[in-house]
Amino acid sequence: MSVIGKYPFQLSPQDCDFREQVSLPALGDLILQAAGKSADEKGFGMQKLNTENRTWVVSRMAIEMDRFPKWKEWINIETWVEEVGRAATTRNFRITDNNGTVIGGASTLWAMIDVTTRRAIDLQTVEGLSKAASGVPSIIEKPRHLPSVEENMLKNHEVSYSDIDFNRHANSMKYVEWMLDCFSLDWHQKHAIKRCELNFLHEVFYGDKVAIFHKHQEELSLFEIKRTDDNGICRMKLEWQ
Amino acid sequence: MSVIGKYPFQLSPQDCDFREQVSLPALGDLILQAAGKSADEKGFGMQKLNTENRTWVVSRMAIEMDRFPKWKEWINIETWVEEVGRAATTRNFRITDNNGTVIGGASTLWAMIDVTTRRAIDLQTVEGLSKAASGVPSIIEKPRHLPSVEENMLKNHEVSYSDIDFNRHANSMKYVEWMLDCFSLDWHQKHAIKRCELNFLHEVFYGDKVAIFHKHQEELSLFEIKRTDDNGICRMKLEWQ
Repeated sequence: MSVIGKYPFQLSPQDCDFREQVSLPALGDLILQAAGKSADEKGFGMQKLNTENRTWVVSRMAIEMDRFPKWKEWINIETWVEEVGRAATTRNFRITDNNGTVIGGASTLWAMIDVTTRRAIDLQTVEGLSKAASGVPSIIEKPRHLPSVEENMLKNHEVSYSDIDFNRHANSMKYVEWMLDCFSLDWHQKHAIKRCELNFLHEVFYGDKVAIFHKHQEELSLFEIKRTDDNGICRMKLEWQ
Repeated sequence: MSVIGKYPFQLSPQDCDFREQVSLPALGDLILQAAGKSADEKGFGMQKLNTENRTWVVSRMAIEMDRFPKWKEWINIETWVEEVGRAATTRNFRITDNNGTVIGGASTLWAMIDVTTRRAIDLQTVEGLSKAASGVPSIIEKPRHLPSVEENMLKNHEVSYSDIDFNRHANSMKYVEWMLDCFSLDWHQKHAIKRCELNFLHEVFYGDKVAIFHKHQEELSLFEIKRTDDNGICRMKLEWQ
């Protein structure tokens, strides 16, 4: 079996924003779907983990796009495990269009936890995982630690039915949606996202109340979502073109 | 060309709610996608209308499900035009699972407008449309006029970037999402939707502020979304199992 999995997706109207191009949260979802399919095929995906009371948790993610593909376009997402440490593993992605042109890349950092104890599992003990470490580097810079954002509380949100996914917490791409909703339609029309970097810190559950903080610096936007008890949930850095 | 178009869809994680089954707004999106594909194939879809400054507008929709299919399942959505009047046309749907079992149906009412003048177009003059009228009836009761809901203002919402679709107004399935978000996770866990009926009255645009009104009667939930200037936007009736 090749170290690199390759998954085709056709962009549906739901994947696309008012510009008829894939939205960042929808693209993130497709990237996570490709990761899930590849891990399942290699025997260390959620299909297997569900039977063992374990789960994968994504802790960092970076996405860089030369262009955001359009409604009806087919894209391929290629993905591979680069390296496996004890606490974290790096999985990378290359996104190509129907002509085979690379239009973007992504890099993610994952941990595995025991669902009951919430404690991290030593990834060296996970069957088949170390063997999958290909050493193939990321085509974009890896996601780094992001600073906290204290100022400029922009919005509140109460976690609702449509935010919750299979794991019974808010879907991580919903965080991205809440943050992008802080910008006007006019802003989105005039600015393209070049790079997005995410740190996932804590989960939020149904009924939790969160606040969204935002700091803008020239071509950069820094965000943090916090629970009203002050726990940081998610940080995001956007680089605009 | 057959009067009935048939379109397969595989349910992705984004289509599904915390129960790992397709959510009502995601199912509605797939139904609208099937309608769009079928109309395009017959030459009176948005591909053609975009060149003529015209657009289809859905005014009523009913969906009835025996069961909501699960993540990874393939479903087929079959669709056909039943009849074509001067002001409105009826398009019906049958939803089957991978075994060919009918698991649900839908019926929709559409008008066509001139994008500039916002005036209705006489559907008898639309090329190819009358010829497509099959007379094949709906497998569920058609959507009817729904009453206004005045009491119990439950929630406010400001229309944001992620609500807006290609037409630059809020996506009609976002209305369904806002209304379903008025119920708790526990309610959704314990209650299945048997039938949903929708009336679409007006559009809402970026930055519009809307309020959601809700009246509950035994096995029925009645909703209305209104703009804060009191214009009705959308009404929904849910029958719970």
